[in-house]
Amino acid sequence: MVTDDQPAAGRGPRGSYATGQARRQAIVDEALVVFSRTGFHGGSLREIAKRVGVTPAGLLHHFADKEELFAEVLRQRDEKVRDAAGDPAEHTLIGQAKRVVAHNQTSRGLTSLYAIVSAEATDPEHPSHTDFAARYRTRAEEAEEILRRGQEAGEVRDDIDPALAARLISAVMDGIQLQWLLDETVDMVPLFDEFVQQYLNPAHPS
Amino acid sequence: MVTDDQPAAGRGPRGSYATGQARRQAIVDEALVVFSRTGFHGGSLREIAKRVGVTPAGLLHHFADKEELFAEVLRQRDEKVRDAAGDPAEHTLIGQAKRVVAHNQTSRGLTSLYAIVSAEATDPEHPSHTDFAARYRTRAEEAEEILRRGQEAGEVRDDIDPALAARLISAVMDGIQLQWLLDETVDMVPLFDEFVQQYLNPAHPS
Repeated sequence: MVTDDQPAAGRGPRGSYATGQARRQAIVDEALVVFSRTGFHGGSLREIAKRVGVTPAGLLHHFADKEELFAEVLRQRDEKVRDAAGDPAEHTLIGQAKRVVAHNQTSRGLTSLYAIVSAEATDPEHPSHTDFAARYRTRAEEAEEILRRGQEAGEVRDDIDPALAARLISAVMDGIQLQWLLDETVDMVPLFDEFVQQYLNPAHPS
Repeated sequence: MVTDDQPAAGRGPRGSYATGQARRQAIVDEALVVFSRTGFHGGSLREIAKRVGVTPAGLLHHFADKEELFAEVLRQRDEKVRDAAGDPAEHTLIGQAKRVVAHNQTSRGLTSLYAIVSAEATDPEHPSHTDFAARYRTRAEEAEEILRRGQEAGEVRDDIDPALAARLISAVMDGIQLQWLLDETVDMVPLFDEFVQQYLNPAHPS
């Protein structure tokens, strides 16, 4: 929460660049809280503004509309998940996926945002529809290629179908995430490990 | 769509029981369309009433509030999915799951409703939160027990963990559903078959 006595960015002599940036980030942070609970459709600018302690007009000084604010929330979420995944040159596909699963379990807000937005985005009229469909397609294509190379190197079971496996990895990540969000006694890490060990790993089963 | 010239149920001499029931069902059908696009939070009674061709007050003659209407939409959805799954005495767990996956691919509205509502329900304040958390817990417990018996009978790989596998089956179903909703060129049936064959089936891998 930013307190009410802070001026809106750019307004008056105290509206410095740094203050404006801090206010802008406070809006993004509160928008994450709201959108991750009720989604894009359910989230209102009025509620976000109230949480930050600005008027709706003050909020619109920083973001043209709900879609622009929502896009920034998603952009920052993606950045954080990329950081958590680590450098792709240093980690394998599965290593990265495991890091993301472990990270998601420590950041309920971001995980919840993703779960609700990806479900909402299935509506062809949702502002993120095209983006999310493309995300999964690109991710599946990249994972398929990496799995094929893993099969050639003997690191991935050679009897699984890499195109299907690529989609199943995302499916398991999304599915266990939903179960953990519904019930935090569900631990995502052993669930993902079981899937990797028993489905992908050539050492199992004998 | 029900046309505007039909009277609201119970109002006037033409408001027979059958008319009232037809109107009530029309409300549930249109509510499914709306909730499956924008979720419980985003769905408005006003929009649902408009689609049916009744006033919001006319709608409230049939359902006390949005939560009651929403509960009826979910109840009817569950009934349809149970019918699709078939008699549990006649079908194995995996057979039932396969039937549900195939059925979901033919009923986008219901599948989309489930995807969005299960994601929204992760919020502890959502009206379906407790119900959805309990659903997954019960389903996992039942599936675990069935998988254990399958292992004893040699029908399920004996090196998988039945408690984790039970959660993974739901996770895969939910995850592939999301990908299909985002992009209908994704076929859920071979994805689920790959998972079952390579993860659960003792005949694979050799």
